Amino acid sequence: MRSSTVRCFIIFTLLLLLLQGHATTHKLLSSPFSTALETLQKQLGYTFKSTDLLRRAMTHASFSEENNKAFAILGATVIETSVSFHLLSKDVDISPKELNRRLSQITNVESSCAVDGTRLGLHKIVRVSPKTNSSAPAVVCGAFRAIFAAISIDSGMPDNAGNVFWNLHGGDLGSAVAL
Amino acid sequence: MRSSTVRCFIIFTLLLLLLQGHATTHKLLSSPFSTALETLQKQLGYTFKSTDLLRRAMTHASFSEENNKAFAILGATVIETSVSFHLLSKDVDISPKELNRRLSQITNVESSCAVDGTRLGLHKIVRVSPKTNSSAPAVVCGAFRAIFAAISIDSGMPDNAGNVFWNLHGGDLGSAVAL
Repeated sequence: MRSSTVRCFIIFTLLLLLLQGHATTHKLLSSPFSTALETLQKQLGYTFKSTDLLRRAMTHASFSEENNKAFAILGATVIETSVSFHLLSKDVDISPKELNRRLSQITNVESSCAVDGTRLGLHKIVRVSPKTNSSAPAVVCGAFRAIFAAISIDSGMPDNAGNVFWNLHGGDLGSAVAL
Repeated sequence: MRSSTVRCFIIFTLLLLLLQGHATTHKLLSSPFSTALETLQKQLGYTFKSTDLLRRAMTHASFSEENNKAFAILGATVIETSVSFHLLSKDVDISPKELNRRLSQITNVESSCAVDGTRLGLHKIVRVSPKTNSSAPAVVCGAFRAIFAAISIDSGMPDNAGNVFWNLHGGDLGSAVAL
């Protein structure tokens, strides 16, 4: 009888631990920030293996020392590579002047980068300090660029990130250029 | 008998055309410039489907209106993406300051880009006008960068070009950074 009591106790303890673990996971998944990251991945058409990278991308320097500043540097170059690659692939004879003109349009914080980021709702997702305005173009743009670094690292291929950018923005390139 | 004479004439003409074609191809392949491009591809570890892209990459603006200027723009962004991607993949916590420092080292014309190009012997390959010095850092650097645009377009993937750059330069990054 004694051994069955011990067995019963072990099973009960294990069940308790299992339930606790489940509750913790559930709690993590159900935070508003985590939910927003889930939705964002659907909008991007990219599912992260490591969502920590997307969490980092959505963290402004005012919120934490662990933030998206370095990611934004890689993200900016990924965008530039993607745009100049697609333009040159489409027209190998494009002039350097025209190529530079289109590149500067696409990398402009006010008219392009922050617009794309706001369209994705990043100003509602990015984590900032209470004193920082999450809708400021530099904040939204930094978060937007950082996404493409996160995808590059997560997938091991910057081209994947460039393709996500191109899908998000590519359709508008024609009209943007016509402005 | 007449029809066999005609048949004989047709066969003879076709053979002549075939031989002429072969001679032309052989002539094209055996030009010093073409030979240099063949050697360059071996050094790069990349074989072009369309060598015209590499010809363009090795053509300075002083030589032709069809030159490598636009290619050099894409090539520069490919290098930046490759470097920042590898540094961030290796150390996700790298500071933005350190990342920028290493990026500016790698993109420096005098100390990095032209050095890499000269090591590949590009100053002996790049086509320039008689009045232009093919060893000038800006000329060598432009040709070096343009290679990575040519590989991006030829393979359809900028990542391939980034990997070629990383293989060429990556081993030196540690020591270059230590300077």
